[in-house]
Order: sequence, then structure tokens, then C-alpha cells
Amino acid sequence: MSMNERVLYELAAADPQLRFSPYCWRVRLALLHKGLAVRTVAWRFTEKEMIAFAGTDKVPVLVDGSRVVHDSWRIAEYLDEAYPAAPLFGDAAARGTARFVARWIESEIQPRMLRMIALDIHSRLDARDRDYFRRTREARLGETLEALHASRETRLPALRAALEPLRRTLAEQPFVAGAAPRFADYAVFGAFQWARLMSEVPLIEPDDPLTAWRARMLETFGASIQA
Amino acid sequence: MSMNERVLYELAAADPQLRFSPYCWRVRLALLHKGLAVRTVAWRFTEKEMIAFAGTDKVPVLVDGSRVVHDSWRIAEYLDEAYPAAPLFGDAAARGTARFVARWIESEIQPRMLRMIALDIHSRLDARDRDYFRRTREARLGETLEALHASRETRLPALRAALEPLRRTLAEQPFVAGAAPRFADYAVFGAFQWARLMSEVPLIEPDDPLTAWRARMLETFGASIQA
Repeated sequence: MSMNERVLYELAAADPQLRFSPYCWRVRLALLHKGLAVRTVAWRFTEKEMIAFAGTDKVPVLVDGSRVVHDSWRIAEYLDEAYPAAPLFGDAAARGTARFVARWIESEIQPRMLRMIALDIHSRLDARDRDYFRRTREARLGETLEALHASRETRLPALRAALEPLRRTLAEQPFVAGAAPRFADYAVFGAFQWARLMSEVPLIEPDDPLTAWRARMLETFGASIQA
Repeated sequence: MSMNERVLYELAAADPQLRFSPYCWRVRLALLHKGLAVRTVAWRFTEKEMIAFAGTDKVPVLVDGSRVVHDSWRIAEYLDEAYPAAPLFGDAAARGTARFVARWIESEIQPRMLRMIALDIHSRLDARDRDYFRRTREARLGETLEALHASRETRLPALRAALEPLRRTLAEQPFVAGAAPRFADYAVFGAFQWARLMSEVPLIEPDDPLTAWRARMLETFGASIQA
């Protein structure tokens, strides 16, 4: 690759155009937010050697000319340093508080979503990733993917209840970060993209304030994130 | 009162110096943050007529000269408008995201805390407030205060688990808002003051990152909030 090229390694499903990692979506939206072009590379869970140069075994990995950055949070901080226009965070308090939002979606929502969509994810994965995904997720979740799938309807009310702080916030303002979307929105939206792209399960109801927010996000970013 | 006086109506227990509302603590800390002096007035749940002039039946109510503001969030916004030095929020994204933190502590944490400390609160209330508190809270919670108290130990693990996004955030930075405390911290801290002042139940363990954060907050504000 050219020294000046910008490349984002993204987790892909069997369909290489189906990019589904919530963390990769954060970065994709951050780049769109800043109007920065990027070439994306499909990466699968088991292709650890492909990203070993970045000193990690997980995506997203961003290569920006001679800079290599991994971890969605650190990539966002890097982008705000390198390209200060159209800030992803804002002031120091905005960045600090956005971290709370990111940790909330990671600890309170994504694990609940995963229990509902894990088998759907598995069915969309590239063949070489399936055993890896099943083994690691069944160990983490303590149940088979099929058992999780069979009981998913019973867990839907708890997931919807856990979204209450987001619902209350979005009933008062159009975006998590206020009047316009920022990285706090992208951290939350990544989780919904993950679920929407990999599963048919309706996690939120049509009249939920979250549905209107998701529509505003899709409208803001248009065709770039409809995939 | 003088037209230029600043007065904060705060919920008080039987001991009029024991001010325990999580929402009133937000405002007390906001005023300390800005270095604004205030005269506080003890108010009890059943003294609705005392604050009727403010068009509300709940505290906090702030009277700032000729301005009357109620609701802790609106008071914070008013203070940042009227006294821009030492901002409580920061930029628009910081304010938007702080709202999420406030709604999170209100929807996910305070209801769990209330179930654990409701009988302790009742025992510290002024005699004239006890029937009101029991009737309204038992209706809201669907159990007697005594039944909630008897089972509180069984609910402690779920409360501690629900604090995980806060714990993860404070393992990475000293305050919810980053390097220094802002309104997001005061919204969270108000809940812990409420529980700490009204109950002996140890909601967080000594080695929890939240304990160190609470100590930093107490150190920042010193004797003003040790009561």
C-alpha cells in the first residue's frame, strides 16, 4: 500500500461486504463524520496474522499513512488529534463523558444483544470463522448458541428495559451528544448496526424513541451505512 | 428575603441539617463548583405549600434574586448561563452527554438503591413525612418497606453489577467527565450521598474503583459535603 493511503481493517461476514463489528462501525462513522476517505479491508476473526503488524489480534485497525492505530477509542482520539476539524468529541468534558457512554453500551447492552443474536451471527459468518466463534462465545456465555437462540424472546424485555437511559435521553434531545451526533452516538449506533445487519430480531419497537434516533442516524449518513 | 439573596430549598430529614435528596446534592455541588454562596432552607416532603410559589411540588428549588428555577437539570443550565465561569457542562456535546449520565443514574441505579435503603430513609425522616413516604414508595415499589429491607442483601450483587459502566470509566480516568469533575459527576455523586447519608448499607466495596472516585469527590469538596 502507498505510504499516504488510509486503510481500515474491518470484521467481515461470509459476504465480504457485510461488515458487522460494532467497534468497526464506530470508526467507519467517525471517518464519515470527518469526511475522510478510507479503503476498507475485509478481515475475519481467524486471520490474526493479517493484523499482527498492528500489535493486536482485534479490529478495527486503522493505517493512516505511516501511523497504525488500533482500538476504536484510541482511533477516535487519534483522528481528533490529526484532523481537528469536525471534532468527534468536543471539549475535555465531552470526551470524558463520551467514554462513559461507550463503556455503558459495552457492558450493559452489547452482552444482552449478543445472547439474542449469537446464532444469527454464526449463520452469517465465513465458514473458516464458525468454529472459532462458536467455541469462544459458548465459553464466554456458558450456553450453546442454539440454547441462547431458543430462549431469546424471553430476554427481549430485559434488553429493552436496559435501554431506558438512552430512551429518556433521546426523548429530550435528538442525539446522545445533544443537537448533533458525535462519537457518543457512534458508540451506541455501532451496537445497533451489529444487531440490525446480523439478525432479524426486532430489538426495539417502532414507537420507541430509539427508532426515531436510529432513523435520524441513517438519514445523516445515508447510503454509506445502509448496507 | 432580600431581592439579591440566593436560596436553595433542600429536602431534609428529622435532623434539619441532614439534607439527603440526590437531586438537591447535584445543585449543592454545582453551587460549590462555581463558588456561589447560598442560604439553604430545610424542606420536608409534605410542605408542598412552601414551594408552591415556584410552580412545583418538588425540590430542589433555587431562588436567585428575582429568578426562581426548579429541577436540578434546569438549575444547572441556568447557572451556566448566569455564571459562565467554571462551567458545569462545557460545550454542547458535553452537556448532551451529561444528560445521558444523569438519566442513567436515575433509571438504572437510584431505583435499585431505593429498594435497599427505603426503610433506612423512613427511619430518619421527620415524623410528619413518614406516612407520606411509606404510602408513596410502597405504591411505587410494590412491597412494604420492611419486606424490601429484609431482602436487601440479595439485591446487592445486582446493584454492584449495574454500576459496571461507571466502574470501567473510573478505571480509565479520575472523574466521570474526565480529568476534573463536572455536572456528570455531581449527578452520579448525588445518588451516593443520598445512600451514604441515609443508610449504613455498604453499597460499594473498599477496593472498588468507585470508592477511590468517591474519596476524590469528598476531597475536592471537603467539609462542605461531609455532613
